Amino acid sequence: SIVDFVKSLFVKKDLVGRKILVTAGPTREPIDPVRYISNYSSGKMGYALAKAARDRGAEVILISGPTSIDPPIGVMFERVSTAEQMRDKVLQYFDEVDAVIMSAAVADYRPMNYSNVKIKKDDSEMTIRLSKNPDILKELGDKKGRQVLIGFAAETDNIVMNASKKIKEKNLDMIVINDVTQPGAGFEVDTNIVKIITKDGDIKDFPLMNKYDLSHAILDLAANLMVR
Amino acid sequence: SIVDFVKSLFVKKDLVGRKILVTAGPTREPIDPVRYISNYSSGKMGYALAKAARDRGAEVILISGPTSIDPPIGVMFERVSTAEQMRDKVLQYFDEVDAVIMSAAVADYRPMNYSNVKIKKDDSEMTIRLSKNPDILKELGDKKGRQVLIGFAAETDNIVMNASKKIKEKNLDMIVINDVTQPGAGFEVDTNIVKIITKDGDIKDFPLMNKYDLSHAILDLAANLMVR
Repeated sequence: SIVDFVKSLFVKKDLVGRKILVTAGPTREPIDPVRYISNYSSGKMGYALAKAARDRGAEVILISGPTSIDPPIGVMFERVSTAEQMRDKVLQYFDEVDAVIMSAAVADYRPMNYSNVKIKKDDSEMTIRLSKNPDILKELGDKKGRQVLIGFAAETDNIVMNASKKIKEKNLDMIVINDVTQPGAGFEVDTNIVKIITKDGDIKDFPLMNKYDLSHAILDLAANLMVR
Repeated sequence: SIVDFVKSLFVKKDLVGRKILVTAGPTREPIDPVRYISNYSSGKMGYALAKAARDRGAEVILISGPTSIDPPIGVMFERVSTAEQMRDKVLQYFDEVDAVIMSAAVADYRPMNYSNVKIKKDDSEMTIRLSKNPDILKELGDKKGRQVLIGFAAETDNIVMNASKKIKEKNLDMIVINDVTQPGAGFEVDTNIVKIITKDGDIKDFPLMNKYDLSHAILDLAANLMVR
């Protein structure tokens, strides 16, 4: 929007010379040629992060699952569908970036057996067996050198405890937590209400904010963590 | 587009006084607050049908699952998410319409047990048990009076046999069959390649057509079947 454009002119250019990888949207895990498992992520948070980082002068790579948002101008854009495709693309760019913000809602599981033909619905019940997808964040945490690594969590219960556990297990620098049960937070809306937990245990509570402004708050914290 | 608008001015107004219900898009069947099962339907075929029927003078009710297409102007629009919501809305309008075109790709199955909290991914495997969704077309076929009932089928194998079976079982007047394995046909594209089978066994093959033009071909057949 025009408001966003005018805002972008006044943004500090503190990320010039930085390369930032952002992931966005859901992934789709195919069951057969017509059916898949996915999640309610709209991609709005990740696209807002990509725009905010671009506006601050960073070189941005946006790797996106299926969304209905137009790719942002001035951002390198890669489209993927499944978690495995997302993983491959992220690893392809990982060595060259200063920070990774994994805002994509990557599916945890995928159907174990893909059927090449549409499964017929003759039975009154059906069972889908799922196996775990690669844990991209964990893999990045294990490989991590200078990169700042930022995760997202959409939690519905035991919010802080679950998130703190993720920081340790995945070697993250910080995690942004959505309580997706709150109105105005989480999926398919233009605003978010988050907590940010850093690896030193600091917890910051943010009020209801639009996703672009929240992106700048996240990037403020990330900029401080990047090595000079 | 402008081309579509100009085309619409030259369309015959043979559906004035008719009320036509069109369904479009996929449905989403929730597993937990963040995950769901869905299918690759973009809704483009159903929205094209709604516009074509509107352009021919019909009063159109479009019941749509989640899509990224703007609701067409001049059409009564109802948004739903699950198969059960789709069923309820279709039944609400059924008595008052002259034809139902079920182009929505309604999920055949839904997760048997919905979890109120996000299912944690602690296990390396996961099983989702599914039970059958209501068969909306079958239910309409059983209730049908004057209504012309048109189904869609996205088949990947045994195309004509599977479709003919559906016509009989569901008391349809005709069925439009996509071979979703052909390039230029089916999901997420602007064109389609279909066969139409009518209840008297007649099979019509259509070449690659854009979805708006194909909509008129479908409405030509439907108009002939509506009682005067």
